[in-house]
Amino acid sequence: MDSESSPDAMSRRELLRMIGLTAGGAAMYQAMSSLGFAAESPGHAPPDLAGAPRGASVLVLGAGIAGMVAAYQLRNAGYRVQVLEYNGRAGGRNWSLRGGDVYTELGGATQHCRFDDGLYINPGPWRIPYHHQGIIGYCRKLGVALEPFIQINYNAYMHSSKAFGGKPRRMREIKADYQGHVAELLAKSTRQHALDGAVTPEDQEKLLESLRAFGALDKDFTYKASLAASDRRGFQKDPGGGLSARPVPSEPIGLTDLLDSQLWGMLSMGDAYDMQQTLFQPVGGMGRIGEAFGRELGPLIRYNAKVTAIEQDPRGVTVRYQDTTRPGSSLTARADWCLCTIPLPVLAQIPMNVGRELAAAIAAVPYSSSVKLGLQFKRRFWEEDEQIYGGITYTDLPIMNIGYPSTGFHGSGKGVLLGGYIWGLSALEFTALPPEERVRLGVEYGSRIHPQYRSEFDNGVAVAWHRVPFTLGCFGLWTEETRAKHYDDLCRIDGRIALAGEHASFIGGWQEGAVTSAHDAIARLHARAVAQGEPA
Amino acid sequence: MDSESSPDAMSRRELLRMIGLTAGGAAMYQAMSSLGFAAESPGHAPPDLAGAPRGASVLVLGAGIAGMVAAYQLRNAGYRVQVLEYNGRAGGRNWSLRGGDVYTELGGATQHCRFDDGLYINPGPWRIPYHHQGIIGYCRKLGVALEPFIQINYNAYMHSSKAFGGKPRRMREIKADYQGHVAELLAKSTRQHALDGAVTPEDQEKLLESLRAFGALDKDFTYKASLAASDRRGFQKDPGGGLSARPVPSEPIGLTDLLDSQLWGMLSMGDAYDMQQTLFQPVGGMGRIGEAFGRELGPLIRYNAKVTAIEQDPRGVTVRYQDTTRPGSSLTARADWCLCTIPLPVLAQIPMNVGRELAAAIAAVPYSSSVKLGLQFKRRFWEEDEQIYGGITYTDLPIMNIGYPSTGFHGSGKGVLLGGYIWGLSALEFTALPPEERVRLGVEYGSRIHPQYRSEFDNGVAVAWHRVPFTLGCFGLWTEETRAKHYDDLCRIDGRIALAGEHASFIGGWQEGAVTSAHDAIARLHARAVAQGEPA
Repeated sequence: MDSESSPDAMSRRELLRMIGLTAGGAAMYQAMSSLGFAAESPGHAPPDLAGAPRGASVLVLGAGIAGMVAAYQLRNAGYRVQVLEYNGRAGGRNWSLRGGDVYTELGGATQHCRFDDGLYINPGPWRIPYHHQGIIGYCRKLGVALEPFIQINYNAYMHSSKAFGGKPRRMREIKADYQGHVAELLAKSTRQHALDGAVTPEDQEKLLESLRAFGALDKDFTYKASLAASDRRGFQKDPGGGLSARPVPSEPIGLTDLLDSQLWGMLSMGDAYDMQQTLFQPVGGMGRIGEAFGRELGPLIRYNAKVTAIEQDPRGVTVRYQDTTRPGSSLTARADWCLCTIPLPVLAQIPMNVGRELAAAIAAVPYSSSVKLGLQFKRRFWEEDEQIYGGITYTDLPIMNIGYPSTGFHGSGKGVLLGGYIWGLSALEFTALPPEERVRLGVEYGSRIHPQYRSEFDNGVAVAWHRVPFTLGCFGLWTEETRAKHYDDLCRIDGRIALAGEHASFIGGWQEGAVTSAHDAIARLHARAVAQGEPA
Repeated sequence: MDSESSPDAMSRRELLRMIGLTAGGAAMYQAMSSLGFAAESPGHAPPDLAGAPRGASVLVLGAGIAGMVAAYQLRNAGYRVQVLEYNGRAGGRNWSLRGGDVYTELGGATQHCRFDDGLYINPGPWRIPYHHQGIIGYCRKLGVALEPFIQINYNAYMHSSKAFGGKPRRMREIKADYQGHVAELLAKSTRQHALDGAVTPEDQEKLLESLRAFGALDKDFTYKASLAASDRRGFQKDPGGGLSARPVPSEPIGLTDLLDSQLWGMLSMGDAYDMQQTLFQPVGGMGRIGEAFGRELGPLIRYNAKVTAIEQDPRGVTVRYQDTTRPGSSLTARADWCLCTIPLPVLAQIPMNVGRELAAAIAAVPYSSSVKLGLQFKRRFWEEDEQIYGGITYTDLPIMNIGYPSTGFHGSGKGVLLGGYIWGLSALEFTALPPEERVRLGVEYGSRIHPQYRSEFDNGVAVAWHRVPFTLGCFGLWTEETRAKHYDDLCRIDGRIALAGEHASFIGGWQEGAVTSAHDAIARLHARAVAQGEPA
């Protein structure tokens, strides 16, 4: 029902309104759906590429999500398409590491993943919000099954090494107590007439009623140990059955301790538009999407192709590349147009004859550093011992997050945790260590939250994105200033070259940024190709 | 880590503390787990029934969850067990209606479910909270696979026919705007020194910082149209990729409209201990649990056995019953002990020689009325058109809820919604109608939220619990007063008869109440049997 207001959407909306008036609501919905309109923003739906000039060709650089979306749509529209990909697989950052996989990072350290069958870690993206209808649409088209990704788990931990004696608290305790205290304080202010100037007496009555529900307050608008509060934060003794079944309330955390702990800082994670329910993950690992695209495009993708130079002239684009399986080789590919999705830190090192503006934009965007640890344990102790099924524990330790699998609950075999999702300075420190040290540190830190780590740890992998040869970083970091100065330049077509990828979007770090950026770029490339008519 | 404080638990806790001191944390966790201690409350874990008197027998009435849990444990402990079940299937209220199923309610109306293969509705329980470790433990033992149940969906609707012109709002809008306004008002009160007596200046600073995060407030602590607010409530135009990708903020709902709408009343649903993430459902329908128990117990269960009288004497219990497939038949079963799980409205009509206290307790508990509608549609329009994947829409219309399936996302075939989960007066009104009228009304009301209902509706079923012959109601409704007066009497063993079921628990209406009640009752029956030694 939500919609948007671009000129294109407005004309569709007019059409829909007329359908609604003449044929009724159901027909309108069908029309909305078939027009790709309902709740979709511009860019989610593939562009209309009708009328491709006969024989026109596009060279796509990079078989990540942006490159493969572009290749898929351009091929379907009748363009001759070739994709050059540095890796030996499709997907780019869309990637699952599974048992048997081998990964060599910059600097030469090689990791052999030894996870059990069916277990995996996603070094890159690991969740898909419901409104990322672009990538979701490709999952549907390519037959990639989706299952729920559990972001918020009230029984996972919030942990500060500086609060509560370093003992982790359950998220439900922090959330219930924060809401309870906030509701009590605002109720008190309201009843002491502090809002009299700003809120009408009628609204104050309704506000008080709402605060009681919101904060689990008692009849006097106080938040305290009670069955109502425990029915949010958990009980000291759960209600049960039969005799001796009466529940025993738990004791809330006091306001000062709660504010001091800083644990409220993570409470709104699940309210963020990109993190709110419902989220998805592909069954079997995020990499299923890249793999499906790779199968779909088949021989259009040339793997192990490392681009070394990009040169455009008035009639087309020539790309020089090496076959990385044949050191010293030098090959070329040429097409009328080039869609380049190479991550900016890599692209910045490749000679390319584009204008000053685009060159400056490419140089202006640093990439986020991030490290992900995948740890295999001998049993799913987080479920068996602690009743944590999916979701994330947040901690102020350098590992920052522990992510629990959203699937395979109660499996009797081994299990893999996201043992750390590390940002900023900590990520740089982890990146500087050899992979086995990163894993060792992850186990060390994690054991302060889960003591079972020490005896249950089996093996692990650690991907430090600044050492990933095909991106040299996790994703593009824009600021308001660099956006204002360089973003449009990065996206504008330069002669015969257009850039696409999450870096060329307002949804940085998400696959949806890659999809919508690719849709936008190929629509503009197509318009140019049509305007120029038949290729030379 | 949470634990409880019964004497039994305390002694185990002492043991665990010693293990922790001598062998370290990991060993302690293993011991906690093997003792069934970690985060389990008394009653979640099956009782120790060692030392059953040789040849002792128990007659279990009812093959619902409570009866089958009891039969399973008693059988495993060496008791001779027979179960009498009124229905032709195991499970009781644990029940999934699937295509081909036939259901006849009190009054004779028969419904033939015509859902497509793989689609179902759960007329009874439909979700399992993570802390219901009793029923979860049986799923694990019996090999019933669990998958996430989506309770909270920020993109589902909150709908009031009296607010916003009857137009449904997305939950994310109501939640973000409520939190935003509450945070702004409390920040304002704080900065105007209304809290000066109650909160220290240091805490006020931290509180303000926390409110900005909690409410998505701007630097001046106001909640207004902004990218920060839209990053909770959703945008007017989503961020996208390429050029023209800039997001456009949406306009929050004003405080007065928000309070007037009463839609805040449902905001805390997902914070309730029984509804908070993570929740589960069995793959294939809740009925998979009852079916698995039925297979496990096999010939111990006699189906189509309608109990007509229960008579105890000093040496045992004799139960008279009819084989409902042979009208007029009269059979008897006898055992040393009887565990009766028959729902109270049915039990109250069966002659049984028990004391005044138990008889009064049985008569004292009315059962909730509730109606559930299962509606099959020709396509999953809620996903395709409206991006609603799982979760619940809340409405003030008599249907009260619309529940969306948590599985099978993007299936190209038909789909089944929970078209209404109806309580109170509305439930009585729906119950009074013939099933096809209930379905028709459900479609009529639902179409005010989803206009697609009218053209996409395929077929439906409607279960009104007051007309369900085997319970005559949905679950026992206790008040504080009836609990104080009758609860212990209901649970105490009367001679050779013990009652169990959700009605004999503090977790009314949940399967966990049935499990914990059964565990408690058989533990006490067993103690009596052991005290009495060999059976006569």
